[in-house]
Amino acid sequence: MKPIPDPDFEGEFSFAREEPFHLEAEGELQPVTLRYALYGDLERHRGRAVLACHALSGSARVADWWAEMFGSGRAFDLERRCVIGINVLGSCYGSTGPPSIDPQTGRRHGDGFPLVTVGDMVRAQARLLDHLGVPRLAAVVGGSIGGMQALEWALRFPGRVERCIAIGATPLSAMGLALNHLQRQAIRLDGERGLALARALAMCSYKSAELFAERYGRRPNRNGEDPLQSRDARYDVAGYLDHQGEIFLRRFDAGSYLALSKAMDTFDLGRGYDSEQEALRRIHARVLLIGISSDWLFPPEDVRALAHRIRAAGRCCD
Amino acid sequence: MKPIPDPDFEGEFSFAREEPFHLEAEGELQPVTLRYALYGDLERHRGRAVLACHALSGSARVADWWAEMFGSGRAFDLERRCVIGINVLGSCYGSTGPPSIDPQTGRRHGDGFPLVTVGDMVRAQARLLDHLGVPRLAAVVGGSIGGMQALEWALRFPGRVERCIAIGATPLSAMGLALNHLQRQAIRLDGERGLALARALAMCSYKSAELFAERYGRRPNRNGEDPLQSRDARYDVAGYLDHQGEIFLRRFDAGSYLALSKAMDTFDLGRGYDSEQEALRRIHARVLLIGISSDWLFPPEDVRALAHRIRAAGRCCD
Repeated sequence: MKPIPDPDFEGEFSFAREEPFHLEAEGELQPVTLRYALYGDLERHRGRAVLACHALSGSARVADWWAEMFGSGRAFDLERRCVIGINVLGSCYGSTGPPSIDPQTGRRHGDGFPLVTVGDMVRAQARLLDHLGVPRLAAVVGGSIGGMQALEWALRFPGRVERCIAIGATPLSAMGLALNHLQRQAIRLDGERGLALARALAMCSYKSAELFAERYGRRPNRNGEDPLQSRDARYDVAGYLDHQGEIFLRRFDAGSYLALSKAMDTFDLGRGYDSEQEALRRIHARVLLIGISSDWLFPPEDVRALAHRIRAAGRCCD
Repeated sequence: MKPIPDPDFEGEFSFAREEPFHLEAEGELQPVTLRYALYGDLERHRGRAVLACHALSGSARVADWWAEMFGSGRAFDLERRCVIGINVLGSCYGSTGPPSIDPQTGRRHGDGFPLVTVGDMVRAQARLLDHLGVPRLAAVVGGSIGGMQALEWALRFPGRVERCIAIGATPLSAMGLALNHLQRQAIRLDGERGLALARALAMCSYKSAELFAERYGRRPNRNGEDPLQSRDARYDVAGYLDHQGEIFLRRFDAGSYLALSKAMDTFDLGRGYDSEQEALRRIHARVLLIGISSDWLFPPEDVRALAHRIRAAGRCCD
């Protein structure tokens, strides 16, 4: 079952391992199914495969959420490399997660889905890459929880990663933990409408005030609502956020949101080591960290501080 | 009913005007009751009275929320001046608002409470000051929606205000409108628990990431919760925010929160004038604007921009 697509072929597949998968925190999952997508010719570019790790709301279909990276002369030039996308453990786009059926009970995992960590996600991905015959990745790249995966790859499998590129990704600071907590609290108030609210808050946390000001200003909502005439009438930015929330709840699962948000919280590079520095010394990959100036969840100061700590551990970090 | 407290006396009173109070947006309230507090000797310091306008969660009792301003040699030195606090229209600490009884129906206003603006708040305050025999204020000072009131005072009653001091207060930009909207959406999901969530989000929006990092870091919640062992176990910062939310819902009214948050949204110095500049030209008071670097709702850039616009209108602004 090794698919060998030509450069123009996009294949999406599922991979299931039957044996128990022991989780870092507690418990196990059996089986673990991972949905994955291959872009380009894996057979030809086996030594130049790139793993692109999606953020909270993404899927295995990298070209759906990062289309601008593909193309001749770009980072994901399929004449030169193969790109692998894997829907993470806990998500709702084909991999094992809260909305998937637990074969042991015949019902959805739902609230009973165990706590998974970024480490679990990465270990499950590594098993899939073993199955695909990819011992070594030219790069692991991703943003937010995708960047956490890239860093975790560099730490857990130092011999398998040449480059690690993490965009807007650090262990969460107290403010990040706070914002994630409030998003989960919203979902606990009301699964569906709470999920929409969580999404809207997340969008506020990573879009800049300048962008919002430029795009929406203090304009009333476009359908003729007048904020001065009714308590429910909205400004444009509020209409936009409500709309984004509504779209999101039609395509995402509240249980998966809780699981992935929680996994972000528990991401901690030093766990299991005497110190974070000792952990960071394991890294062999060249690391590139990219901060986003408007990011409230992963402020650029935190990204710079992590880069400093990686360099202080004697490792290569741009 | 003109109370004349001595300097050490704090008096809290109610003032009701029976005639209809026409609201800026639509409708009227009848009567309007305002709860107010006097600190110091009004008779003696009538010409040196200061109006201290509270923020969303405050009350007439200025000494309860701004105690550090009082004292010999400080801004609120009661040997030298009298300080007046007035619970705003729409609040829940004794003034007419959603939780107060509508005498026309004998029931709480509740959801039927009309939309009030910062302009309405200030006009109601002016009627109370007429009643107290205070034609002119040495200063109007406040933060957040209290600072909006200070600015509105300077604009609407240019002959009655010598100094206007507004801390972290500007017309809300799109990001501010967004955060207020999400807080109201949380309350609409679930009045009580939504109010707690709204409060927690508000706290995130005005406390700095640095403060959170220093105070809470990534520590687990103090009662022995282990975030890695249970999906509901919290970090310290999450426990703190939940606690703040719980305290708040015991002391504040969800309807008042909706009303005051909405009034903040509609604060617009140019409304009713040909331009904001024309409005700002009305100001006679010396204006002092103070920005708070960590404020996400009223970013210091927006405060600086407003100061620039006031100066561009030919008015005095520090």
